[in-house]
Amino acid sequence: MEDIEIAQQNTPEPIEKIATKIGLTSDLIEPYSHDKAKLSMAALQQLNQNPAGKLVLVTSINPTPAGEGKSTVTVGLADALQRRGQHPVIALREPSLGPVMGMKGGATGGGYAQVMPMADINLHFTGDMHALTAANNTLAALIDNHLHQGNALNIDPKRIVWKRALDINDRALRETVIGLGKPANGEMRQDGFDITVASEMMAVLCLATDLEDLKKRLGQILIAYTKDRQPVFVRDLKVEGALTVLLKDAIKPNLVQTLEHTPTIIHGGPFANIAHGCNSILATEAAIHAGNYALTEAGFGADLGAEKFLDIVTPHLSKAPDVIVVVATIRALKYNGGQALAELNTENTRALEKGYLNLHRHLQNMQRYGIPVVVSINRFTTDTENELAVLQDLISQEGLTSAVTDVHERGGEGGLDLADFVIEAATEEQSDYTRLYQDDRPVLDKLTTIAQEIYGAKDVELTSKAKQQLRLIEKNGWDAMPICIAKTQYSFSDQPKLLGAPSGFTLTVRDLIPKLGAGFIVALAGNILTMPGLPKHPAAEKIDIDRNGHITGLF
Amino acid sequence: MEDIEIAQQNTPEPIEKIATKIGLTSDLIEPYSHDKAKLSMAALQQLNQNPAGKLVLVTSINPTPAGEGKSTVTVGLADALQRRGQHPVIALREPSLGPVMGMKGGATGGGYAQVMPMADINLHFTGDMHALTAANNTLAALIDNHLHQGNALNIDPKRIVWKRALDINDRALRETVIGLGKPANGEMRQDGFDITVASEMMAVLCLATDLEDLKKRLGQILIAYTKDRQPVFVRDLKVEGALTVLLKDAIKPNLVQTLEHTPTIIHGGPFANIAHGCNSILATEAAIHAGNYALTEAGFGADLGAEKFLDIVTPHLSKAPDVIVVVATIRALKYNGGQALAELNTENTRALEKGYLNLHRHLQNMQRYGIPVVVSINRFTTDTENELAVLQDLISQEGLTSAVTDVHERGGEGGLDLADFVIEAATEEQSDYTRLYQDDRPVLDKLTTIAQEIYGAKDVELTSKAKQQLRLIEKNGWDAMPICIAKTQYSFSDQPKLLGAPSGFTLTVRDLIPKLGAGFIVALAGNILTMPGLPKHPAAEKIDIDRNGHITGLF
Repeated sequence: MEDIEIAQQNTPEPIEKIATKIGLTSDLIEPYSHDKAKLSMAALQQLNQNPAGKLVLVTSINPTPAGEGKSTVTVGLADALQRRGQHPVIALREPSLGPVMGMKGGATGGGYAQVMPMADINLHFTGDMHALTAANNTLAALIDNHLHQGNALNIDPKRIVWKRALDINDRALRETVIGLGKPANGEMRQDGFDITVASEMMAVLCLATDLEDLKKRLGQILIAYTKDRQPVFVRDLKVEGALTVLLKDAIKPNLVQTLEHTPTIIHGGPFANIAHGCNSILATEAAIHAGNYALTEAGFGADLGAEKFLDIVTPHLSKAPDVIVVVATIRALKYNGGQALAELNTENTRALEKGYLNLHRHLQNMQRYGIPVVVSINRFTTDTENELAVLQDLISQEGLTSAVTDVHERGGEGGLDLADFVIEAATEEQSDYTRLYQDDRPVLDKLTTIAQEIYGAKDVELTSKAKQQLRLIEKNGWDAMPICIAKTQYSFSDQPKLLGAPSGFTLTVRDLIPKLGAGFIVALAGNILTMPGLPKHPAAEKIDIDRNGHITGLF
Repeated sequence: MEDIEIAQQNTPEPIEKIATKIGLTSDLIEPYSHDKAKLSMAALQQLNQNPAGKLVLVTSINPTPAGEGKSTVTVGLADALQRRGQHPVIALREPSLGPVMGMKGGATGGGYAQVMPMADINLHFTGDMHALTAANNTLAALIDNHLHQGNALNIDPKRIVWKRALDINDRALRETVIGLGKPANGEMRQDGFDITVASEMMAVLCLATDLEDLKKRLGQILIAYTKDRQPVFVRDLKVEGALTVLLKDAIKPNLVQTLEHTPTIIHGGPFANIAHGCNSILATEAAIHAGNYALTEAGFGADLGAEKFLDIVTPHLSKAPDVIVVVATIRALKYNGGQALAELNTENTRALEKGYLNLHRHLQNMQRYGIPVVVSINRFTTDTENELAVLQDLISQEGLTSAVTDVHERGGEGGLDLADFVIEAATEEQSDYTRLYQDDRPVLDKLTTIAQEIYGAKDVELTSKAKQQLRLIEKNGWDAMPICIAKTQYSFSDQPKLLGAPSGFTLTVRDLIPKLGAGFIVALAGNILTMPGLPKHPAAEKIDIDRNGHITGLF
């Protein structure tokens, strides 16, 4: 059964009722139809008066074509905690529309562990992505207008670093020339579009703590350099107020529910490589104070998403995670161990043992942060008892507990063991969060620390372009920011095909990009596409709606 | 006082209460926060069971830099009708965000005749524009993806007629080259962006009667020609279902209220030159059946907006207008009579008499459709009693009634006379709607009829490109559609500086563009910009928001 069918068979409770579950009266939420709402700024203030609950971070091994089901486990674990009498609240990222029309349907969990209303969340939801697209492109138009109207700031058209954005998978817009035609069409120059989730404004929205902070961060965004190489910021154009107005509603987190009516806050969705890949701080803080268990997830594998959650996001939160859940599947581990995709249905404990090294390193990495770790083995029907026994044995040899989950087929019921282990870890073990590095260390030190300690690299090499950027960053005093490494999600290394747990490699950094609004330095390691393309047969060809509004083809 | 200040001083009633005024229970509306809602498809069906009220079309003389205040009069007239014990419902167009950040603040009336919530309606509102932008650009990406993935349909990259769109004033995007860089970036070709309100999808949304009709119209959109000159439609890509899914909420009209709590339906806003310039048919039908007076307005002057309302939109409506209100101001008429903009504060009855010819022709044109006409003189403080007397005398010489309105300063109170005249015309005069032309006449005949009968032209001349397009249109059997002339809004002619009531000129048509989804042929007369630019000092520089969410600079 398609996910959309399961979703459409379930009736959401009125969103006011879900709000009541977290202590909010209907005047504190702003409904968007009957099953979605924004939390008002007053609601956020009220929630923050509550004591903090336990914070659970869900992460995973490196993603593979076999699929891991991290969001599905997050949703199922929350539903299981609710079945155990706890008061869980989920905080998740918002899906991007581009991929929905391209490769896959949704990003709201799957099977019986889903968030509702599935179609709306995957389409326009409450308009946050569109507001970001509008703000991003309003800024771009204002920059080109500045050039056209006399260029009082002396901006070098060849040194504009702000790009346009669309929430569409559109490879043809990666590299463009704009301003062609008559003089009235503005200055001709090279330009390009990113997908909206890769816009710095998305990262800014996710890290901002209120309207004031949002405006300040927007004003700080670096947009260009002058012809004499001086930085130009948004505040130089005096438009950070207007951009904040465009994002005044997008900054408010969105409330929805799981199929089992667990309150779920969905807000913000920055790319997990070019940006930090976690939902907004406002959403996570709201979840922390809205129940006794807050569950959030970080993008891609633990080397990318969780590292950034722990080193970039956590310092802005009122508390660090109490438990980290690492999601793995037998299939994905076998793939990491060298078994071919087409063969994954066949038992292969040797490939499993080999691929286990990937999980092993992620587990070690997470423990390095001083936070209790629990493993969730997301079960597939093709997994054999033998394989499960081998994997659980390997995990217990590390002194860790693992639970087999089956939430895709059974909802919260399939995550009860995991819920019990998480409760145990959260209440009986001590979280003693230690950051990997301090922001005031030199950029290359910080880079090397992440590469060696988390990725298993031998060393880090900067290309000449990256070295040039490093000098610029140091000259301008922008070096005391955390590092956000953009690399392939498929490997610990910068080479997508190095599966398992590679070591001894050199991480090549080919660019360093200061993101002054977000407050981190992006280090580009490898070719990172910031505008995806559509496949030969886009999902759009299958998506349809009948005269009664019944949707098919979203999955 | 800024319009936004007046707006923020007024408290909207809960939108459920406004819905009750038109007989809708809260389950039939889909709230967007507490002061906006979408009408569900079930609500539209229920409303259509009600008897039809009177339909009032508000239009105006040719717009001038002096300002006419057509939306303000529409809102004020509705509030006045409500004060007279009637049950008015307004149907208006949605503002476009691009101009809000550019030249002007809002498009929701002004002063004490406004629609609330002013800021939200002028910003993202309920996301309709953004959904259109997403659908427009998803289609564009799918076309370029088709080229990249083998081009099975044999599309000629030089004959793609579908452009990208953004709801931004961005002159640099008018003419672009896309697909630059590596082969993986798709096929390189010339392209360009229109503002979203100029997208054919906006016209389609405004003319669609339900989801089924929307999907059919989207499928019919002409996107390109093959290398052997055969037309290619959206349905050839099999994505009309996905595009309809993207517009499933945008098709639902939005309910808001005036400062005096008159129910107002705001939905759709196609360009009044390149498209038909009227709010959606679903909104107008809902207004017709939701009260006993439906008020709607058409874009620009009566030569553009009202002509299209009467010849393109009305045939799709359940009834024709019962009264047409033509808005004029002394200042705008004096400007039409040759008085300089800086001198308009000085009394000048001679310029007034000369400029009156503009109003005179609009009044004659409207009467030609067989519908009772009332004139609204939108009063400014600089108007002298003498000038008012001259103007009212000229109007009464035509056998028409005119009311002086002052709704900007006094709200509905300032429109009571106009309301009385409208009630009188609607109840005592007979509307006998006659269309200007029949769709099955030859394209050149239809063009000539509009040009001669409405514009006062001597004749119509087609450029060689337009002649070529005419042959293509006839060859493909697309000629039996109404004509949507795109020309300057400032003059009856195709020359912006020919004010007053020019005649004897030749209307030059330089292109004929079949819009098969919308169902009309656009005739381009003159240089029509479909992507505006920003001014030297964009409104965005003045727009701001404080920590409490209080907005300034929108006006």
